[in-house]
Amino acid sequence: MVSTAGSERKTDRAEAFSDAVLAIAITLPLADLHAPRAVASTRLGNQYAALAADYVAYALSFVVIGLYWAYSHFSGKLWRKTDHGFNLLTLLFLGSVSSTPFPARPFVEHLGDPADARTAAIVYAWMLAAPATLWTFRWFYGVWRGLLDPHLAAHYVRETSCKYRVDAGTSVTGAIVATVISWPIGLAIVALVTLSYLLPPMAPEFKPGESPRDDIQEADEDR
Amino acid sequence: MVSTAGSERKTDRAEAFSDAVLAIAITLPLADLHAPRAVASTRLGNQYAALAADYVAYALSFVVIGLYWAYSHFSGKLWRKTDHGFNLLTLLFLGSVSSTPFPARPFVEHLGDPADARTAAIVYAWMLAAPATLWTFRWFYGVWRGLLDPHLAAHYVRETSCKYRVDAGTSVTGAIVATVISWPIGLAIVALVTLSYLLPPMAPEFKPGESPRDDIQEADEDR
Amino acid sequence: MVSTAGSERKTDRAEAFSDAVLAIAITLPLADLHAPRAVASTRLGNQYAALAADYVAYALSFVVIGLYWAYSHFSGKLWRKTDHGFNLLTLLFLGSVSSTPFPARPFVEHLGDPADARTAAIVYAWMLAAPATLWTFRWFYGVWRGLLDPHLAAHYVRETSCKYRVDAGTSVTGAIVATVISWPIGLAIVALVTLSYLLPPMAPEFKPGESPRDDIQEADEDR
Amino acid sequence: MVSTAGSERKTDRAEAFSDAVLAIAITLPLADLHAPRAVASTRLGNQYAALAADYVAYALSFVVIGLYWAYSHFSGKLWRKTDHGFNLLTLLFLGSVSSTPFPARPFVEHLGDPADARTAAIVYAWMLAAPATLWTFRWFYGVWRGLLDPHLAAHYVRETSCKYRVDAGTSVTGAIVATVISWPIGLAIVALVTLSYLLPPMAPEFKPGESPRDDIQEADEDR
Repeated sequence: MVSTAGSERKTDRAEAFSDAVLAIAITLPLADLHAPRAVASTRLGNQYAALAADYVAYALSFVVIGLYWAYSHFSGKLWRKTDHGFNLLTLLFLGSVSSTPFPARPFVEHLGDPADARTAAIVYAWMLAAPATLWTFRWFYGVWRGLLDPHLAAHYVRETSCKYRVDAGTSVTGAIVATVISWPIGLAIVALVTLSYLLPPMAPEFKPGESPRDDIQEADEDR
Repeated sequence: MVSTAGSERKTDRAEAFSDAVLAIAITLPLADLHAPRAVASTRLGNQYAALAADYVAYALSFVVIGLYWAYSHFSGKLWRKTDHGFNLLTLLFLGSVSSTPFPARPFVEHLGDPADARTAAIVYAWMLAAPATLWTFRWFYGVWRGLLDPHLAAHYVRETSCKYRVDAGTSVTGAIVATVISWPIGLAIVALVTLSYLLPPMAPEFKPGESPRDDIQEADEDR
Repeated sequence: MVSTAGSERKTDRAEAFSDAVLAIAITLPLADLHAPRAVASTRLGNQYAALAADYVAYALSFVVIGLYWAYSHFSGKLWRKTDHGFNLLTLLFLGSVSSTPFPARPFVEHLGDPADARTAAIVYAWMLAAPATLWTFRWFYGVWRGLLDPHLAAHYVRETSCKYRVDAGTSVTGAIVATVISWPIGLAIVALVTLSYLLPPMAPEFKPGESPRDDIQEADEDR
Repeated sequence: MVSTAGSERKTDRAEAFSDAVLAIAITLPLADLHAPRAVASTRLGNQYAALAADYVAYALSFVVIGLYWAYSHFSGKLWRKTDHGFNLLTLLFLGSVSSTPFPARPFVEHLGDPADARTAAIVYAWMLAAPATLWTFRWFYGVWRGLLDPHLAAHYVRETSCKYRVDAGTSVTGAIVATVISWPIGLAIVALVTLSYLLPPMAPEFKPGESPRDDIQEADEDR
């Protein structure tokens, strides 16, 4: 087996890279969001109205990427180190999150047309299921390679593993339902999983007597 | 009530993310700023002149986002920690700041046409009022959740709360005036609130004997 | 000789800049990736299919830049400091990595046309050979200027130098083969060198008794 | 006089923001750099050749922004703190650097046409003179507000002030020469000032006995 020992580092630089990619991904759709150009024949109000699908799509994308950032912001606390394989999985996760804005506009635009709405919804459902799935893969890879903070309570790791397995499973199920049964039901399932990240994550729990010095407390003691 | 205890972290990573989003948002309008393409029939000078509205719109956007960065740069000092809800409000604030370049060009382009100038100004006034309002919401959320540095003097927190409430109230009033009474007056009010951030912020004041070791002093002592 | 002593700093800021450029470069091709626009005459499914070359090209570019990030993430550990010349070489390396998405789409699009496929493959081969070559130049410059961690074992530095020399030599050979002999063979050689970065890098080895306090261990001791 | 005491912070966050803006500005021109689209009637080789002006313009812009980054990377060492006014000047400097790619392509494209070449060169000369000038303004503002490291030797500060005054003066002179006398001479002057940043900066000198603990040494002692 290939050893990844040489590629282990603490997580700060990988966290910063991840934040940068998400910061760009959340802002980039703005570049595709064009304000109306001066045209003699149409009132500006109508032009703004004609671009409504673009704005709704941008808002959707913003919510999705924003939730993933808020969630990964929290989870940074749980990892003690990172290795080459973990970095590659992080990249895949980031790539899938960054791609979620992409099918949003076609979906909003084709809502009125049954056949195309179905195509658009299936693409969107799979693109939303991808980050939830990759996030879960990355979690289990990290657990397997011993990258987690070793002081975390076993039951906390177990419950988090369970939650992520359920999230990924439900997302993929939703995408399958969207593809073969009913796109509104399938897409709603995937959307609900994504929106569940609006809820704050479970507070980490530690082995008895191994609770870490809180980084906030630490910042206080620096005073 | 949902607890957000598990999502509390010190503020460095959220500050870095916020800086990254603002850095991208302030630079991205450049991608929409096209230099003239070689065209046989027109002199380059005329082509540059024809693009003047774009350049003015870029300069406006740069000023607005730049002021918000300079202001949020300072305010980072005041927070002791961040939680999930605060992160979500930060995201909304960043999204609203990032969107301010968007209605700038239509506004500059339609200044000569009364009906469209009004539409453009109303859109712009609301888009400028949004960040001031969200900033204030975020402040009060943070105060309510106890995220502020606990050593800040009570009167300093009170006065800052008052200032932010006035800023948000004036901005929204300006946007309403632009919509129902007179767009030049309304937009001028919103613009004045934004430009008031050119003034340096109030120096933080601390409870007697709880003045923190200054981070500049600290950097000196590291020598 | 011009002294660069005044420009020496530790590597954290240069690492952060490098991460930021790679984060942008890996996300920017998304801006060129347009979802289909609503068109009455064509089914959305066909439109998505017509854009397949763009998606494959994006995936290719993502893999290439991602691998270079993962690799440079690791190598940050090896440098003790940076100077002006090293920064300029870092810039050239980053510029060449950022440009790799550029010839990817023409290559994918022209695969079916022998003459253009050859042109596209030659351009792509050289663009992929460039970062491997510049990375090696930068390594040898750093070794020559004494920027490496002085505690690294001499044999480790020798073996790494050897590996990088082989990587650069093989890449350039591949690009030459693509140009004058056979583009499929030449491009395959360059692609193999790039994909070899999927393997985790060699673990650093240190002089006896000079093994550094691991930064992960250090983070643990901070608890 | 308005006090800026409340806005003083150490320089790390402003440095990071500045790095992020430059990282985006150096990568963004890539988004405007389109690889040829598949067109039946033209050979790919000819299409690549037709885009040569774009590639040269990108390379030019990369060099200019890269040099400013390398230079500002070094200068971060000299500042002890930052205030609101300094942040606003930093923003103006960053905006002017980010805008330098903009007039590069029109200049390269119009080289063959005397009248337009002159227009293009004048615009380019002023756009290149702007960052050198704003950099100098920012330096003198920082000196005036006492933001420099107080341990720097007085003669070092004097010599650096002198160098920056000369750089800004020469750049503006070059832009004026380009405008009223001869664009090739004027632009050459401005270009030379910019290229002079290829040379490493002067090593900082400190008051006797106040030489700071080197941040590289410091990193070593952390081992």
